[in-house]
Amino acid sequence: MSLKPIADIGEFGLIEKIAAICAPTIKPASGVVEGIGDDCAVYEHSPSSVQVATTDILAEHQHFDLLTTPPHHLGSKAISVNVSDICAMNALPRYALISIAMPQNTPVEMVESLYNGMAHAAKLYGTALVGGDTSSSAAGIVISVTLIGETSKENLALRSGASPGDLICVTGALGGAAAGLKVLLREKRIMMDHVQNGEPYNRDIMNNLEEYTEAIQHQLLPSARVDIIEFFHKHQIVPTSMIDISDGLSSDLRHICQQSMVGARIEEGRIPILSQARHIADEFQEDALDYALGGGEDYQLLFTLKPDNFQAIVEHRDITVIGKITPKEEGMTLNDIYGMQIDMKEIRGFDHFT
Amino acid sequence: MSLKPIADIGEFGLIEKIAAICAPTIKPASGVVEGIGDDCAVYEHSPSSVQVATTDILAEHQHFDLLTTPPHHLGSKAISVNVSDICAMNALPRYALISIAMPQNTPVEMVESLYNGMAHAAKLYGTALVGGDTSSSAAGIVISVTLIGETSKENLALRSGASPGDLICVTGALGGAAAGLKVLLREKRIMMDHVQNGEPYNRDIMNNLEEYTEAIQHQLLPSARVDIIEFFHKHQIVPTSMIDISDGLSSDLRHICQQSMVGARIEEGRIPILSQARHIADEFQEDALDYALGGGEDYQLLFTLKPDNFQAIVEHRDITVIGKITPKEEGMTLNDIYGMQIDMKEIRGFDHFT
Repeated sequence: MSLKPIADIGEFGLIEKIAAICAPTIKPASGVVEGIGDDCAVYEHSPSSVQVATTDILAEHQHFDLLTTPPHHLGSKAISVNVSDICAMNALPRYALISIAMPQNTPVEMVESLYNGMAHAAKLYGTALVGGDTSSSAAGIVISVTLIGETSKENLALRSGASPGDLICVTGALGGAAAGLKVLLREKRIMMDHVQNGEPYNRDIMNNLEEYTEAIQHQLLPSARVDIIEFFHKHQIVPTSMIDISDGLSSDLRHICQQSMVGARIEEGRIPILSQARHIADEFQEDALDYALGGGEDYQLLFTLKPDNFQAIVEHRDITVIGKITPKEEGMTLNDIYGMQIDMKEIRGFDHFT
Repeated sequence: MSLKPIADIGEFGLIEKIAAICAPTIKPASGVVEGIGDDCAVYEHSPSSVQVATTDILAEHQHFDLLTTPPHHLGSKAISVNVSDICAMNALPRYALISIAMPQNTPVEMVESLYNGMAHAAKLYGTALVGGDTSSSAAGIVISVTLIGETSKENLALRSGASPGDLICVTGALGGAAAGLKVLLREKRIMMDHVQNGEPYNRDIMNNLEEYTEAIQHQLLPSARVDIIEFFHKHQIVPTSMIDISDGLSSDLRHICQQSMVGARIEEGRIPILSQARHIADEFQEDALDYALGGGEDYQLLFTLKPDNFQAIVEHRDITVIGKITPKEEGMTLNDIYGMQIDMKEIRGFDHFT
């Protein structure tokens, strides 16, 4: 029998197969509103409210590198990326469970620093760290975070509710996380070369990273946009669809288009790009737009709104309208600054298995 | 600075430190009934009900070995051990989230088999597999399962409610999982020797394992005792305390005694031991009692009851009264079949880090 490696079908091919296997367990269960395929699972909580739940697994050498990530930051980021998934449902985070597997020789001080980072972030987001599991692992640290949040049934935002004419909006500025990673990986390479050449420890070989602070912070310490969700609830704004940008604007917009069965047209000139990301892209002779479209890890919110909500958001200095939802037949296009239409199907986001 | 490896403080030392770090996130949160320290976290669900949530992380080479565990069984066990934690709160399972990290060359067929095992078990327990995460890993497969269950406030059973005079009860028969593991590890050793000696594949070198079927099944396919929880609810029995036996009777009884601030006296002769575990122990020239007390992974329920509940359980053929809760000063003792009192402090359970 010849076996097929996951790399052949990719992350999304795998998720499709898993969703098909899990579907028969969902049908007989009462109260499941949304199973696999959105940022969170959704199930009924009370006649008027739903719970949303999400989980993320972070593996050393794949999602983080302790040579470039202080454990305190890693802990904070592990919470933030899950809170971000809760926000993407237009919900607020409530409870978190943390699992960790690590080698027996992991220093206690490192674990404490990791959990201090988690607790710090959890307090900021009003989330209680209520439980978890600890275990040994043969190779590297693996952290799994599960977050449970709540929202009213009217406020719930799925990926599937966008329709032609809706405005496409994004929060904050994009590209910073990818740019920050570029800089950190360059520093790591310099350090590793230094170590491999057997040179003595010398602080001066490290670059002064001050000019990259903002981008590095976007990479190491992203914030979940709980503030935006509170703004929505306060102003009774309910996005017709929403997702958080974890794989890159292009890939995450594609999820909205596929699940809403619509197309999209984006204006390149409107995409908010972190100014430091532009500087870093110049330094690496790359295009900051690629960081925004395909870099991922910005954890900003991408959402669609009925046009009559425009007045409610126009004053918010951290929300930008970048385009419009179109009929499905029109596909996903990007109008570049020279007026050319680019097919966004060609721009790939991050895939864990290919 | 000298750093202290986790092995120095052990699993329970580590959990204490983590609980202290997480405590400040729990205080300001409304509705948390029980944080870290029980089988599940507990938080308010409605004025009359609570939700219970648990998570487990399973790492290849630590918790499972694909040389001795078919992926379908592994999937089923991953669900069962978490459902067992839900049962230990006198609650019923509702929703599960699955995270998995695995190397890119993992065969798709293996992943499908794993999830089929999960879906099969989930259906048996009436649990919906509603979400999860997939990711690549540098070394080995890591599975994390989170389970959410529900129960009424009156039915909730914590570890901390036992008081002197309560009956100590256990479900099923113990020692089978540890005995089954003994047999599987012996088979693996024979197979590895064979492979290392460069001998050609030969089915006949494998033992006929038929006589060990029951013990191997306890190891590979443990069942969570949802049936016992349904029996409790039907007969309005509420254990004063409860835990599931994952680390061994001795270690898990110690958790109840510590958290209830009581002592315990167990009769060796009353401990139900799987008869096949006795046969296997004889073969290995070991004592099946050690498998029951320190072997773990039986996933039976250990609970305490007010004596006036005795009539309600005496007819149940799968519940055995094995002893009594005593005042704290009397410690934890085992009366052996010769009438000797043994201090149970000396009998250690499983610790991931020491």
